Amino acid sequence: MTGQPDYEIFEAGDVPLQSGAIFPAMKLAYKTYGALNSAKDNVILYPTSFSAQHVDTEWLIGPDGVLDSTRYFIIIPNLFGNGLSSSPSNSGIGSFPEVTYHDAIAVQHRLLTERFGITRLALVYGWSMGGMQTYHWAALHPAMVARAAVVCGSARCAPYNYVFLESAKAALTGDPAFRDGRFVEKPVAGYRAMGRVYAGWAMSHGFYRDELWREAGFTSLEDYLVRNWDTTFARRDANDLLTQAGIWQRGDISACPAFGGDLDRALGAIKAHMLLMPGATDRYFDVRDNEDELGKLVNAKSAVLHPIPSLHGHRAGNPVNNPRDQAFLKAEIAALLDK
Amino acid sequence: MTGQPDYEIFEAGDVPLQSGAIFPAMKLAYKTYGALNSAKDNVILYPTSFSAQHVDTEWLIGPDGVLDSTRYFIIIPNLFGNGLSSSPSNSGIGSFPEVTYHDAIAVQHRLLTERFGITRLALVYGWSMGGMQTYHWAALHPAMVARAAVVCGSARCAPYNYVFLESAKAALTGDPAFRDGRFVEKPVAGYRAMGRVYAGWAMSHGFYRDELWREAGFTSLEDYLVRNWDTTFARRDANDLLTQAGIWQRGDISACPAFGGDLDRALGAIKAHMLLMPGATDRYFDVRDNEDELGKLVNAKSAVLHPIPSLHGHRAGNPVNNPRDQAFLKAEIAALLDK
Repeated sequence: MTGQPDYEIFEAGDVPLQSGAIFPAMKLAYKTYGALNSAKDNVILYPTSFSAQHVDTEWLIGPDGVLDSTRYFIIIPNLFGNGLSSSPSNSGIGSFPEVTYHDAIAVQHRLLTERFGITRLALVYGWSMGGMQTYHWAALHPAMVARAAVVCGSARCAPYNYVFLESAKAALTGDPAFRDGRFVEKPVAGYRAMGRVYAGWAMSHGFYRDELWREAGFTSLEDYLVRNWDTTFARRDANDLLTQAGIWQRGDISACPAFGGDLDRALGAIKAHMLLMPGATDRYFDVRDNEDELGKLVNAKSAVLHPIPSLHGHRAGNPVNNPRDQAFLKAEIAALLDK
Repeated sequence: MTGQPDYEIFEAGDVPLQSGAIFPAMKLAYKTYGALNSAKDNVILYPTSFSAQHVDTEWLIGPDGVLDSTRYFIIIPNLFGNGLSSSPSNSGIGSFPEVTYHDAIAVQHRLLTERFGITRLALVYGWSMGGMQTYHWAALHPAMVARAAVVCGSARCAPYNYVFLESAKAALTGDPAFRDGRFVEKPVAGYRAMGRVYAGWAMSHGFYRDELWREAGFTSLEDYLVRNWDTTFARRDANDLLTQAGIWQRGDISACPAFGGDLDRALGAIKAHMLLMPGATDRYFDVRDNEDELGKLVNAKSAVLHPIPSLHGHRAGNPVNNPRDQAFLKAEIAALLDK
């Protein structure tokens, strides 16, 4: 990067975490798109997914995009551990504290209220870990969230999802660069192993059977694995990746203090218009987990489950260069915003 | 092990492989159960699965088992690379040649004909890589195979299955013990990483959601992962594991010289009674791959697809301590043997 960074920092000061620890001088990096209107009622919050920074996800934003920045004021808060907000790689803290979605939402809430005076969100939209943050927003601030779109996300990390992450972590930490519980240098083989584990989980049986990687210009399966997956995680600090995997695995709206471990109560707290939009062939955010949740959204203004009819697995919800799934998302979000 | 080994060795001599190379002094380890009758028409061939030796799979054999050794003469041929038949760990060959199912079936065929004078198989039964060997037997020796039970197997390694194996291999070879293309010592972290990758792929979403590991006596998810998966591959030589993963990934009946890459022709060569019995929730040997094959078994005496209705994923076909799936297998095989 040259010149000025393209994002702002919200200095949250010393933040008490859900774990009871205090995070010193915690920083939330964020970027805004479009303009806040005078009524402050055109706000969309768009939290980030695993290993992503706002530059990775802002492609969704635009006049013709899924999120329209000519009408809405869109804020991307970078999730802790992504290398821009407080993370092992930039905090100078030897033993990085255990952070949760609850902690992330608390600081995002302060950003919205303290810096912008925002008290109402037209929409919270998130994919994957962003979808889990969206669920937390809807449950923790029901009066504030008018609409929530959970794209390939869930209210808590399902056991199968947890096991997938165990395998990704084991692949990454099998590298010799992982010593005494942390990475002391770049895990070259570990990055590759984690990428290959992801390749199977993120996409579907049909994606590989029908060789849909050809649509993105890859010439062979090996070409796809090498160029799309082997180095996809190498751009991130490996300790940062472990921190975010931990947030993901601990993800559970019912674990927030307000709900005392009661998932029915946590889901019942939600009042927004809820759109659950899993990928029909997603393997770790399984449609069945959203199905279980749907019946418990008893106080939502509306709650619908609209799986994305796609062979792109988890990536159906992040359809870069995938016009079909992108059109589906766009139509669904337009309908949600009209509610 | 103390005393005499419980198996025999068939010395195959110098064997020309499908690749064109010659394998010097190739050895096939096998064990027999029950007695060959005078008509030599009571033979069941039961090839082994990934990393398994006959001691791991013989639990299926018994008077009350799926395969009845009081009526049938059952032969387990250990697959090359399993540490008993010729393998990197026991052959003293620096660069172990590329072996295929075609090569394995050729030596097994010699064992049956040269040592026992067997010209007819009542049944070939195999799970997983054993199921792929079963398919090869049925296609390569149609006049010899009366019945074939392909349990969680396929005619060729599907792309998704291939990608799964890429992830398992990447996890194993991410270990520092892997140097210049081979393991120079035991990959402790690699074994664990491979086990955790397997944990997600071998079992199903529902298995973890419903905590079915409790039925086998595990007390927590972590307990299950640690005791069932973290060390499951450590009992095998890591170079042997890579050799078998390669056989699996190259597995394709149509790649046998007789069929010139034509899968329809290879499937059309099969004349046996075919029972395709995938696990309903198997993720790497997907039911859909067997469905695609079923319509092409145009010359089989009969061909049926009976998925095992189970949440045990790929392990539905290897139901140790799983009486429900075991009963399903037993009934299906009894019906097949009655044809």
